[in-house]
Amino acid sequence: MADLEKALRLHEEWRGKLTIESKVTLDSKEALSMAYTPGVAEPCKVIAKDPEAVYKYTMKGNLVAVVTDGTAVLGLGDIGPKAGLPVMEGKCALFKEFGGVDAIPICLDTKDPDEIVETVKRIAPGFGGINLEDISAPRCFYVEERLREELDIPVFHDDQHGTAMVVLAALTNALKVVGKKKSEIRAVVNGAGAAGTAITKLLLADGFGDVTMCDKVGILHPETEGMNESQAKMAAITNKTGLKGTLADALKGADIMVGVSAPHIVSKEMIATMAKDAIVFAMANPVPEIMPEEAKAGGARIVGTGRSDYPNQINNVLIFPGLFKGALAARTKITEEIKLAGAHALAEMIPDDELNEENLIPYAFDPRLADTIAQAVIKTAQAGK
Amino acid sequence: MADLEKALRLHEEWRGKLTIESKVTLDSKEALSMAYTPGVAEPCKVIAKDPEAVYKYTMKGNLVAVVTDGTAVLGLGDIGPKAGLPVMEGKCALFKEFGGVDAIPICLDTKDPDEIVETVKRIAPGFGGINLEDISAPRCFYVEERLREELDIPVFHDDQHGTAMVVLAALTNALKVVGKKKSEIRAVVNGAGAAGTAITKLLLADGFGDVTMCDKVGILHPETEGMNESQAKMAAITNKTGLKGTLADALKGADIMVGVSAPHIVSKEMIATMAKDAIVFAMANPVPEIMPEEAKAGGARIVGTGRSDYPNQINNVLIFPGLFKGALAARTKITEEIKLAGAHALAEMIPDDELNEENLIPYAFDPRLADTIAQAVIKTAQAGK
Repeated sequence: MADLEKALRLHEEWRGKLTIESKVTLDSKEALSMAYTPGVAEPCKVIAKDPEAVYKYTMKGNLVAVVTDGTAVLGLGDIGPKAGLPVMEGKCALFKEFGGVDAIPICLDTKDPDEIVETVKRIAPGFGGINLEDISAPRCFYVEERLREELDIPVFHDDQHGTAMVVLAALTNALKVVGKKKSEIRAVVNGAGAAGTAITKLLLADGFGDVTMCDKVGILHPETEGMNESQAKMAAITNKTGLKGTLADALKGADIMVGVSAPHIVSKEMIATMAKDAIVFAMANPVPEIMPEEAKAGGARIVGTGRSDYPNQINNVLIFPGLFKGALAARTKITEEIKLAGAHALAEMIPDDELNEENLIPYAFDPRLADTIAQAVIKTAQAGK
Repeated sequence: MADLEKALRLHEEWRGKLTIESKVTLDSKEALSMAYTPGVAEPCKVIAKDPEAVYKYTMKGNLVAVVTDGTAVLGLGDIGPKAGLPVMEGKCALFKEFGGVDAIPICLDTKDPDEIVETVKRIAPGFGGINLEDISAPRCFYVEERLREELDIPVFHDDQHGTAMVVLAALTNALKVVGKKKSEIRAVVNGAGAAGTAITKLLLADGFGDVTMCDKVGILHPETEGMNESQAKMAAITNKTGLKGTLADALKGADIMVGVSAPHIVSKEMIATMAKDAIVFAMANPVPEIMPEEAKAGGARIVGTGRSDYPNQINNVLIFPGLFKGALAARTKITEEIKLAGAHALAEMIPDDELNEENLIPYAFDPRLADTIAQAVIKTAQAGK
């Protein structure tokens, strides 16, 4: 409680976690005449003739808009654009501190997906990339898809793909530890919203053999009732063995559970029904689907969470700063290949001789992180993927 | 020429004149848990209950969006939103360096006035104020009017009102020098676009007795042909004595000429027809309507321009940083009274014993500027005006 009060007090002291500074000292007529009139007309004229030159003479190439409509902020739900601002500022601070990327919050006073798309397109000329944040599913799928198609700059919904990339990295290393092959395992992803859907798609793209999704409606299967459109699509491309029933049914014999759902919905007994050397990523935040101690007691060999007070923190900050750093440098959109390359680069940061049940992925403050991910992005983009 | 090349080279070195920094050092789990999850949820929850608290816990209260559609950038015209970005960055740098106000460019990929309004309204939750910039007339009038009415934060079109405020300040002091009363003079404003219209309205609001506007169509008079809607409205409330004809006709016997039009369109001979102790502000930039030496040779007693290499530089930077600093602090919209108060505060910065033909208004780097203007704004707002 004291910590939460401290966080509130600090936010009041900060009155904003970001500051916008001039790189140019404007203390003389000479300086003004270079950075502002009349000198500033020169880059304007060049860009007017060749719009690509905007990357050469302005901040566009290193500036990301962190866009939200405030509909799915943390675990707080639809709290609106103003209440989402402290999170967006924090995200922008992470972009800069971890990736050297300039980022600014754009909090939208509309929840209409078409209006969100339209607005982001209209403000896009000044930005080098768009990071969508805390937009509720399934609206976020439509918004991201349209923006990816219709804009010429990278667009990334971190809650989907950032999470998916870190999960893939951690699972890749977890499978190494337990000595299983991704093509031969069965994974259960619980929570068929933004994150769960992206995780599932990325695991399948990476060659995971059998992934089954669950949500409040139970196991996603073409005959399951009550699914939304996105869940129905996922039912059609997952669940190879045609499982039906509840999460408990899905977990029987499964090698992997990835939870992006709700606190305390998995029991020790359910974990005990999983296959030998089970891998459990319980990522509901701040209270996971099952506490690590319980999961271990149920027989899980490897446990990861979203928390910093347990080993194996599955944390988006491992990916997004470096991912955008690389995408901005390479002027590339973020393709499926780039996501896979980024995830594998993250996994490979842990050498085999340091890899173990409690050390699957790098620490958030590992100074190599942003450049390692950025280089993987750049290399993949240069290979034309 | 060398200077222009230097400006271009510097812009290439800078690759953006702004940088966005975190105020919070994020180098430990503890720091992350305060600025980001889980601590950040606390201000979010408070703002969700009380949206006004966004001013207490976020950057909104000190953040201005510098919004353009790139249709009237410097003297370059409609060069588009990307080509306008170097100017917007420069403007934001001035906001910070001169006023301590955080500002970020928003360059819009639409020229439709209704879409501009709609877009700015949608991104408004994260901003404490809107500075409209380089939007062409007469579209800018509609955009500003709607945004002023429909948003609860200050909205200011600097090209109109910033210019008008500095002109009013300089004219106030110029009339002191020549010993004429504003109620008894006749002023000619040449250029009936955004700036000229705002200047005329503010002079009238301040009690200037007779103002006549001119544009390419000639003197604005209800019977003048070829005026746009805005010019027709101005014709109805100006030109007390019913003048018709050209700029040359308007200038005969006039006490004041304010030019916000085009280079070299006023001759020494035209100045010679003005009243004794004529005041000439030739503000076309970078080349004025008449060069100061010629205006003096024609008989003008006081000359001002937009240039930093002559006395009496009529420069918007004297006003907008302090104006927004005050408006943000007082959480006020920018009313007519606030504009008048700001202009008079600027004029009063030059004490009577320092006031002369070549020293009408403060130097742009006067360190008292922003706080003087801000205090005038705050005082006027607190008086409920």
